[in-house]
Amino acid sequence: MIQIINLKKRPVGMPTLADFELKKEDDNLKTADGEILLNTKYLSVDPYLRGRMSDAKSYVPSFEVGKPITSGIVAEVIDSKNEHFKKGDFVSGMLEWKTKQISKGEGLQKVDADKVPLSAYLGIVGMTGLTAFLGLHEIGKPKEGETLVVSGAAGAVGSVVGQIGKILGLHVIGIAGTDEKVELLTSEFGFDHGINYKTTKDMKSAIQKAAPNGVDIYFDNVGGPISDAVLFSINKFARMVICGAISVYNSTELPTGLSVQPFLVRNSALMQGFIVSNYADKFPEAMKQLSTWLSEGKLTYRETIVEGFENTPQAFLDMMKGNKKGKMVVKA
Amino acid sequence: MIQIINLKKRPVGMPTLADFELKKEDDNLKTADGEILLNTKYLSVDPYLRGRMSDAKSYVPSFEVGKPITSGIVAEVIDSKNEHFKKGDFVSGMLEWKTKQISKGEGLQKVDADKVPLSAYLGIVGMTGLTAFLGLHEIGKPKEGETLVVSGAAGAVGSVVGQIGKILGLHVIGIAGTDEKVELLTSEFGFDHGINYKTTKDMKSAIQKAAPNGVDIYFDNVGGPISDAVLFSINKFARMVICGAISVYNSTELPTGLSVQPFLVRNSALMQGFIVSNYADKFPEAMKQLSTWLSEGKLTYRETIVEGFENTPQAFLDMMKGNKKGKMVVKA
Repeated sequence: MIQIINLKKRPVGMPTLADFELKKEDDNLKTADGEILLNTKYLSVDPYLRGRMSDAKSYVPSFEVGKPITSGIVAEVIDSKNEHFKKGDFVSGMLEWKTKQISKGEGLQKVDADKVPLSAYLGIVGMTGLTAFLGLHEIGKPKEGETLVVSGAAGAVGSVVGQIGKILGLHVIGIAGTDEKVELLTSEFGFDHGINYKTTKDMKSAIQKAAPNGVDIYFDNVGGPISDAVLFSINKFARMVICGAISVYNSTELPTGLSVQPFLVRNSALMQGFIVSNYADKFPEAMKQLSTWLSEGKLTYRETIVEGFENTPQAFLDMMKGNKKGKMVVKA
Repeated sequence: MIQIINLKKRPVGMPTLADFELKKEDDNLKTADGEILLNTKYLSVDPYLRGRMSDAKSYVPSFEVGKPITSGIVAEVIDSKNEHFKKGDFVSGMLEWKTKQISKGEGLQKVDADKVPLSAYLGIVGMTGLTAFLGLHEIGKPKEGETLVVSGAAGAVGSVVGQIGKILGLHVIGIAGTDEKVELLTSEFGFDHGINYKTTKDMKSAIQKAAPNGVDIYFDNVGGPISDAVLFSINKFARMVICGAISVYNSTELPTGLSVQPFLVRNSALMQGFIVSNYADKFPEAMKQLSTWLSEGKLTYRETIVEGFENTPQAFLDMMKGNKKGKMVVKA
């Protein structure tokens, strides 16, 4: 039997298990010419999936109700009628939440199981690392000596952004939501400062104190009041990389906050939405740099591996609630 | 006697005449080596001056209480001990609100009184035109066939932005606050559509209707609820030029509105604060283009000329309240 996870209905507010549906089908998959048969090994669960579960206007199409979710997956080729792939290859790409599936191989990249652990291709040398690297470089345009603030700093993307910031010679401040995560920022990921936004009454002052020279780059994974507080410290020509807004993804009403426009005018500052897929032409170079740093021990990462394909929805929910450190991956 | 207008106190909310002070001093100005003596001919009053009257953090220094306001001024050289200027020259630049003053000539540009009217150097071929031209080009990056929305569209900057948009082959929609102004947008400035935000109940729908292909560039002079409504129509890779936020300059509390971050992420869109002085290296080329278009009859402008140096504060207040069309200038 093949297992499949469909979107059962569009979540309202924070998703629940009832929004997903586990189905089983007979395994009668056969490859035609040009096709490969894939066996899912690891599945990635990420905040951006929440957006695709809604039907709000977006250029990334929404998931269809009654159809499988797709996300980053590492799979093994178990049968091939495609000259580019052979049995035993491992591939990474956007695939459906199924234990087995047929693909034409488009958009899939072969990955080396010996070089780094397979799950890392969903994280530090996959979309997570690419998002951190390209978001910081392409929009943040870091210059040595500048100050970088990262929100969602202990998360999969945030922890890599901060580490790259340190490699590049920036003063790096991370914002996270538990003392344990904040401790990790400085002890494990090398940030200069960590701020716990849940126990800090005056975030505006805390950021001003941690960033005495002001903030040049803000890598924003969360949006909401944390991001409002950062605005008071931005420098002239500050760049704000809007990578995610996890704090408001589950809002049932349109979120409101400080008007950013007066801050932008006053500081000739920039805010830009970042989606890693827009920068696909830069993936090879960025992956090379990330692998190098990883092999040199300059980058470290945490991952939480959940066992069992059928637990993917629960893993997604735990990730959305912040009940994890580092990259959340499911081992099928 | 020389007349001088000082900032008497920092305005709270909408400025009033009581925030300014008219002083008179004996005229004993004498030029030293390298100096010129200037007689003020025209003074420019602009929304951005409101920002400089506050003491909020900004890289453009605030005006000092008890000291003269400065703004764009066209003056005649009435005495010169500077080899670059001679008696009878006209100059344009940032100068103090004084009927006569001494200058070393730094930052002043000679202007040709025969080519265009002197007041135009404060408007269409001065900061106003440069703001429109450079804001649209440097941040908006217009491409033929795209859709441009302009707020404060009947204002000095907005009306030029829309006209340049039409020259470049864009679909141009203007937003203004009276039926008379909206009429002017299409009849005089060549916009494709005008929307009166004061009489339109559902701005979101009105913009969607006027921009059926979505909005690629938003040139924002006002901020606030109008700008919130535009967000619902932005296209992938939209560019929002944040040139001003006149709707909130007089707020005594920090203005709030829709959180822009989710819109920016969803559309890989950009918002950037624009201040024309950051682009000084592009002034000569831009002024040349603006003069050419003006002489070819491709650009038109309106100005309101208020007579009398002592009426400058009132002219500023009238401009802030929107009681004018086009560029507001004071004839000293």
